[in-house]
Amino acid sequence: MKKPVILISNDDGIESDGIKALWRSIKKFAEVIVVAPNTQQSAVGHSITVANPIRYRKNLIDKNYYGYAVEGSPADSVKLAVRNILKNKKIDMLISGINHGANTAINIIYSGTVSAATEGTILGIPSVAISLASFTYKDFSVASSFASKIARTVLKKGLPKGTLLNVNIPAVSRKEIKGVLITKQGKSVWDDQYESRHDPNNREYFWLTGKMNILDNDLEFDQTALGENYISVTPVHYDLTDYSLLDELKAWKIKM
Amino acid sequence: MKKPVILISNDDGIESDGIKALWRSIKKFAEVIVVAPNTQQSAVGHSITVANPIRYRKNLIDKNYYGYAVEGSPADSVKLAVRNILKNKKIDMLISGINHGANTAINIIYSGTVSAATEGTILGIPSVAISLASFTYKDFSVASSFASKIARTVLKKGLPKGTLLNVNIPAVSRKEIKGVLITKQGKSVWDDQYESRHDPNNREYFWLTGKMNILDNDLEFDQTALGENYISVTPVHYDLTDYSLLDELKAWKIKM
Repeated sequence: MKKPVILISNDDGIESDGIKALWRSIKKFAEVIVVAPNTQQSAVGHSITVANPIRYRKNLIDKNYYGYAVEGSPADSVKLAVRNILKNKKIDMLISGINHGANTAINIIYSGTVSAATEGTILGIPSVAISLASFTYKDFSVASSFASKIARTVLKKGLPKGTLLNVNIPAVSRKEIKGVLITKQGKSVWDDQYESRHDPNNREYFWLTGKMNILDNDLEFDQTALGENYISVTPVHYDLTDYSLLDELKAWKIKM
Repeated sequence: MKKPVILISNDDGIESDGIKALWRSIKKFAEVIVVAPNTQQSAVGHSITVANPIRYRKNLIDKNYYGYAVEGSPADSVKLAVRNILKNKKIDMLISGINHGANTAINIIYSGTVSAATEGTILGIPSVAISLASFTYKDFSVASSFASKIARTVLKKGLPKGTLLNVNIPAVSRKEIKGVLITKQGKSVWDDQYESRHDPNNREYFWLTGKMNILDNDLEFDQTALGENYISVTPVHYDLTDYSLLDELKAWKIKM
């Protein structure tokens, strides 16, 4: 049987440990093509490069295996892969990750990892984003084995047009994981601050700091499930219409 | 009576004609503070600067009136305005625009203009994004007068927590405008391509081109309403959960 073709991207860059762990896991059952940003791209949101040209080059992932490093954002990488690099190839699935750091609650809208999966979805490819809930935890074994599991499930079941899966993995050992929960995007937001500093020329600059203000405490939400050591799987779409407000706005009878 | 305090931002940059037209219209009834990117930021999506410091400087908007130019994205500008520059000030509303170019259908997710309004919404401020459906049309009079109208309406009626209004104005004269419609985000997507070119050193580079593949033809959608010369007002939120898929995913019974 012909192997499925899976495109892998991320936002931590093509040299990151997470994308290599994902590649090693997925290549066991699929033909994998890696197209990812050449440098770290965190918190880029769904940016694309329109006012400048972009380039890509081949980049060694592991012995004898080359991926494509794109001078651009995660969304650029996916768009360029589908529209150009792999133009004549049917892509069965896209996986973005494995990201270092959770992408839950409000973080989803800043996330380059989710953005790559969103771009895949826009381009009609069943897509999954995978994040590991730590910036430092080095063990990608649970995350990469679950990535393989969910990839095979999605290949079998499919996803509705316009919807991706956003997966978050607790940064703990396999035996500490309590299970898998289907969740909703949490409501927690950042209580952020700008720390003021001065450069050597005494010019003031600001650095974004702050902590997540946890507003959810129910396992039906991604952030809470993750905090309780469940793998969280959230269906995410990019229909941003707030349908609940349509009738009320019509009743405003706004004129020119 | 105390004037309302309105924060203005955009993605075309603080020097753009659109933000100046908006400022001139809104300052007639409000205390306006302009905090916007120092340079053009189109298609940046909801990016924020986390790995680098950011700076801002005062920037002359018009005689005797200064705004704040931020070395960052639209979302950076709004975050820095609310968390730092205007830290001790109650902001009654945020308006982002007036953007040169429509922000409808799939474009909403790439839009810096909408991103500024999204960041305002996240920070608890009733927010509106305003775009004029042309990159070249120089007459902001209809757009700025409608911006003023909708701002006063929102100040009176309020908006639910988590929802902003995305407004698009046809690039035609006042008498050609057919009215105002409350719409949904359209389903049209880009049929994009990468044009291959070679630089003077014969290195290949790519430039994103393409056209919108119009998939909607009903006035209930933003893109269609705009194309028929209606002002389009869409309620947009950032709860990205696809609720319709939750039960089906639970039935998949995914295990580790």
